[in-house]
Amino acid sequence: MAGKLKTAVLGATGYSGLELTRILLRHPRLEKPVLLRRSVDNGSASDVASDLADVFPALYGNGGYPLHALSWAAMKQQGVELLFLATPHEASRALVPEALSHGLRVIDLSGAWRLKQEQHRAIYNFQDSDAVSAAELTEKAVYGLPELNGDRIAKATLVANPGCYATSVILALAPLLKAGVVDRNRGIVSDSKSGVSGAGKEPTAKTHFVSVADNLSAYSIFNHRHVGEIVEQLELGAAELMFTPHLLPIPRGILSTIYLHLNREMTPLEVESLFQAFYSGKRWVRVFQTPKLPQVQFSLQTNYCDLGFCLAEDGRRLVLISCIDNLLKGAAGQAVQNMNLMYGWSEDEGLL
Amino acid sequence: MAGKLKTAVLGATGYSGLELTRILLRHPRLEKPVLLRRSVDNGSASDVASDLADVFPALYGNGGYPLHALSWAAMKQQGVELLFLATPHEASRALVPEALSHGLRVIDLSGAWRLKQEQHRAIYNFQDSDAVSAAELTEKAVYGLPELNGDRIAKATLVANPGCYATSVILALAPLLKAGVVDRNRGIVSDSKSGVSGAGKEPTAKTHFVSVADNLSAYSIFNHRHVGEIVEQLELGAAELMFTPHLLPIPRGILSTIYLHLNREMTPLEVESLFQAFYSGKRWVRVFQTPKLPQVQFSLQTNYCDLGFCLAEDGRRLVLISCIDNLLKGAAGQAVQNMNLMYGWSEDEGLL
Amino acid sequence: MAGKLKTAVLGATGYSGLELTRILLRHPRLEKPVLLRRSVDNGSASDVASDLADVFPALYGNGGYPLHALSWAAMKQQGVELLFLATPHEASRALVPEALSHGLRVIDLSGAWRLKQEQHRAIYNFQDSDAVSAAELTEKAVYGLPELNGDRIAKATLVANPGCYATSVILALAPLLKAGVVDRNRGIVSDSKSGVSGAGKEPTAKTHFVSVADNLSAYSIFNHRHVGEIVEQLELGAAELMFTPHLLPIPRGILSTIYLHLNREMTPLEVESLFQAFYSGKRWVRVFQTPKLPQVQFSLQTNYCDLGFCLAEDGRRLVLISCIDNLLKGAAGQAVQNMNLMYGWSEDEGLL
Amino acid sequence: MAGKLKTAVLGATGYSGLELTRILLRHPRLEKPVLLRRSVDNGSASDVASDLADVFPALYGNGGYPLHALSWAAMKQQGVELLFLATPHEASRALVPEALSHGLRVIDLSGAWRLKQEQHRAIYNFQDSDAVSAAELTEKAVYGLPELNGDRIAKATLVANPGCYATSVILALAPLLKAGVVDRNRGIVSDSKSGVSGAGKEPTAKTHFVSVADNLSAYSIFNHRHVGEIVEQLELGAAELMFTPHLLPIPRGILSTIYLHLNREMTPLEVESLFQAFYSGKRWVRVFQTPKLPQVQFSLQTNYCDLGFCLAEDGRRLVLISCIDNLLKGAAGQAVQNMNLMYGWSEDEGLL
Repeated sequence: MAGKLKTAVLGATGYSGLELTRILLRHPRLEKPVLLRRSVDNGSASDVASDLADVFPALYGNGGYPLHALSWAAMKQQGVELLFLATPHEASRALVPEALSHGLRVIDLSGAWRLKQEQHRAIYNFQDSDAVSAAELTEKAVYGLPELNGDRIAKATLVANPGCYATSVILALAPLLKAGVVDRNRGIVSDSKSGVSGAGKEPTAKTHFVSVADNLSAYSIFNHRHVGEIVEQLELGAAELMFTPHLLPIPRGILSTIYLHLNREMTPLEVESLFQAFYSGKRWVRVFQTPKLPQVQFSLQTNYCDLGFCLAEDGRRLVLISCIDNLLKGAAGQAVQNMNLMYGWSEDEGLL
Repeated sequence: MAGKLKTAVLGATGYSGLELTRILLRHPRLEKPVLLRRSVDNGSASDVASDLADVFPALYGNGGYPLHALSWAAMKQQGVELLFLATPHEASRALVPEALSHGLRVIDLSGAWRLKQEQHRAIYNFQDSDAVSAAELTEKAVYGLPELNGDRIAKATLVANPGCYATSVILALAPLLKAGVVDRNRGIVSDSKSGVSGAGKEPTAKTHFVSVADNLSAYSIFNHRHVGEIVEQLELGAAELMFTPHLLPIPRGILSTIYLHLNREMTPLEVESLFQAFYSGKRWVRVFQTPKLPQVQFSLQTNYCDLGFCLAEDGRRLVLISCIDNLLKGAAGQAVQNMNLMYGWSEDEGLL
Repeated sequence: MAGKLKTAVLGATGYSGLELTRILLRHPRLEKPVLLRRSVDNGSASDVASDLADVFPALYGNGGYPLHALSWAAMKQQGVELLFLATPHEASRALVPEALSHGLRVIDLSGAWRLKQEQHRAIYNFQDSDAVSAAELTEKAVYGLPELNGDRIAKATLVANPGCYATSVILALAPLLKAGVVDRNRGIVSDSKSGVSGAGKEPTAKTHFVSVADNLSAYSIFNHRHVGEIVEQLELGAAELMFTPHLLPIPRGILSTIYLHLNREMTPLEVESLFQAFYSGKRWVRVFQTPKLPQVQFSLQTNYCDLGFCLAEDGRRLVLISCIDNLLKGAAGQAVQNMNLMYGWSEDEGLL
Repeated sequence: MAGKLKTAVLGATGYSGLELTRILLRHPRLEKPVLLRRSVDNGSASDVASDLADVFPALYGNGGYPLHALSWAAMKQQGVELLFLATPHEASRALVPEALSHGLRVIDLSGAWRLKQEQHRAIYNFQDSDAVSAAELTEKAVYGLPELNGDRIAKATLVANPGCYATSVILALAPLLKAGVVDRNRGIVSDSKSGVSGAGKEPTAKTHFVSVADNLSAYSIFNHRHVGEIVEQLELGAAELMFTPHLLPIPRGILSTIYLHLNREMTPLEVESLFQAFYSGKRWVRVFQTPKLPQVQFSLQTNYCDLGFCLAEDGRRLVLISCIDNLLKGAAGQAVQNMNLMYGWSEDEGLL
């Protein structure tokens, strides 16, 4: 296995961590990843399992997936170079400085290092033990959206993997905003809907089958953590966006329906060309030819972000549809895409 | 049974027609309704069934539900005074003039008679055999939204029962628009999601379980038939509204998420009071106290329209949540509410 | 409200308790029920809510549903005669002796008092503080399956409302076993499937939406608590039955598929007649005419037990299909049916 | 691409055909498969599409998937050696003789060639134009269950790929029946449940979302086409098996719960060892260690057949749980596994 990269995953027992582990296991450039158990403090079954197949029986029969205690020394000894954190943001906020100090590169799937501006970060209420180095790392962290920040990701030590909703919204809006064709004074609306895996594996009243099935609910209106990412990356004023997340009765998948006014009349062909040009050569964005529109099913189990649109007859009012699999392009798949960029591999590797 | 009203239902074999029939059967002011079969031309099973329980086995064991051929003479003989049409709009467009000429009052659940303005009606492409009387009837028809048009419904001969999406959107927006607090220049967005029964009982590729489950899709953007109803009833310009319907992987229920800007700063209390005042005494609208929000489940199997809202900290940007059961407040329940008004009964009757 | 019965419900915040409360609220023979909060020890939100509508927002707008602390004195003062327990079996085991000592009649929806034989009761591991009176009450308790034990229920002080699975299986098998036509030596199989509400409202890994959706799983094979009820009521040997429950990805409903051999050749007509005769006059059992078969949907939201069958061409091998709504005929509806019997009312009352 | 096998697929527009095509496209031993359109007679959209991505938009952006008219000459010219038929059984029955006469090897996913005994085949009511050669081919066809018939599959010209239900039942029962430990006199029950993709892509009343969601239904009791396969392969008498299929509200996956009596007392360890020994070295069967049991989710999107069991304390009564993905091990995956055997490749190839 000479020449293959050694990676480790902390948090493989969560939904994103599992998806990530599955991809890493079949990634042709990697050795088998080291799976790290989170601390056993909270005593949940996931945290004391000794093998990932005990948590996800779908893994049975493919050999062992031992879960190890987190040890920087052991990682060094095993030659781990890259650490994936699929942990809650508090854990990531605490662990990243340590990991970097041990010479690891890190891809963090949580919200711990995504936000540059204090006003957006406040919602997380981070309790940094070393505020100075936290501020430094915050500056240093690269927002891991490959289609926008590919060059910086390639050289990054710390990649803050984007939020799932944020990925779907930013990729839909970036081409139009960068082209300056959006009438920002009239406001942008993103009505986003996500499958339940986005809410995490913890059983709660909200994720109980009977609460979700035959239902749809909106939540965290004007108050969702991903809003900061969206407005920072798109350089929007917070008041220019209304974003509402909804909980769908499906296990996975996100569809964002985005509404805006153009500041000049355009034709459908112009809009489509603008998108096609912006994402030319971008492997993991699919621009649908109007009048075709993405649906949640089309990108499930893939790393695609699917984009489509419908322009009103007046050539001014535009509706965008953006779909991703929240666990892939919205989390684990994008993390792997970022790794591919960091190590100079094709963005396809391990994701087909 | 002296003193009880005799009704008939055409189209009981569809989803709305079945719900309607169930309500009529237990309505204390009614005799057992006459169930009418649509013409047998298309040869589908529903159209040749001789008993409604053969189409909906959930009805077994409660006695017979014979389906009769449509006959004006027989209806007259049976003393039918009120006819419900749960038929496609083409059928309703053809049948209503006949029914009225036979002295019946009619509540039509289709889109045949809802629209006053030719520009909105065009989407239906009606082929009226007698254009003059069709135009007269169009004028005469009352849009059957009891919370807005109660007085006119009470005296109506022909009630055009509103569309399901339209009901959810109009009831949410009416209080704000009538109060003149909406910044209409910035546009209104209604992102609406419906369960599959809204797409009808006909099996199609779109309604196949495998196409719907684990999915969400948008459709008919800028092109849905209900837009005309919404803008007519709310006296909006078509360009002031962006409306996108979505197909949810649930059997029934609608949630509309509506976005707008206020033209002056308001407090949450002011908004709530405005809604409470507008719907004071309206039995079938529930205004949720902020920060509580309606969910699809809460109004399922009821005739309620549930309304809630979230106001941004700037006091300007407002998100409304409106939920109904598309088969009840969005169709059959509202039809019965209209009947109650037409005959001077409590709006509750038969709907508890 | 003179002449109306005063009831109380302990455990209205669970799924069965909510259904029960809804029925009691519209039951024409009852005053508004007193809703009792369980002790606040475990600190869950449901246990500290002061109004049932805070737990189930679907109840909003119909006036208050205050939850009161349990107090025997207050109940006496309010004139409560009948207490429904929709509590875990441990709670019911402890509370019933107290309730009876205060002169109340009790309908207990838990498994606390259903089993006569110690060998079957062992699985519950009851810790009775007064073993003698517990033994007495166990004798006294009537198994509340109205179609089989109607006479004894009418006079009962304590009704042990049957388990949901048990109801579906016992009602399907009783006619054949009582007629002596089953070849018991060859064994009976009941393969039963239930919606998730049967697993209770507590959020667990098992009831998480992502664990249930797109899934089916068997559990508690040879080890389910309802087996004891089935074999006791049907006077079967434990080894004569194989019973496997499964968790369905639906909110509610049970379908049991039951397999047996007849000990003599029969015709479909004979089998159907046997069922029709056995359930003649039983309002809440529907026997489907072969080849029609019940489906889960047909009895949802009703108190029916739907029974159907398919006989092999050899006239010997028989498959029975039995469907109920687990929250109605399998819990709350049956409890009301039992109350109707206890007070001499029609079995229909409140259940239409 | 020298040395790679050239294949063709007829019926790629169905669910199984799509899955098959996806696997073939990434199979390392194959050239890109030729996709063949079924005749255009029935005029459905699937049959006139010119590219598979028009039928399944999930395929967009990966280059073209042109659908060609069926032409034996063109296949010969293109060097096609192996033809997959994912067609209705009538089509397969007619096409296979032709295909073989043109020197192709065939893997047929339909039921056309699975049954040896006329009594079982009658249910299909085949109308063979040449009864003699049909009889010959029937003899020649190998039932493509690799775990049982691997040697014969390797040399086969015509492989009849097993039915989905049949695969789940035969693999569960074979080890016990071959070991002679089943008390066949007492009968075997297989209660099987399948996701909706098993019912095909044709929209029907049965596959309408509203008919399936929140439902479970049994169908074709004592009358399902797969019974013949099961009893032929297991050498059972028809009366020794009761098999009931059910329609689950999930898109894909099968779980069979199988009940039998052992003819001697066994321990759980003995049963497990028997299964482990039987499937030793069989890559695509996973035997779960008791008390762990398979669930539908565990084998979704894989080619595994997962087997587990629960033995009663008496050591006699045994319940088996068998799960597969009906589109993979139950159809397309198994077809590829068969191809791998036919060409001497590892059974893994293309299936990881």
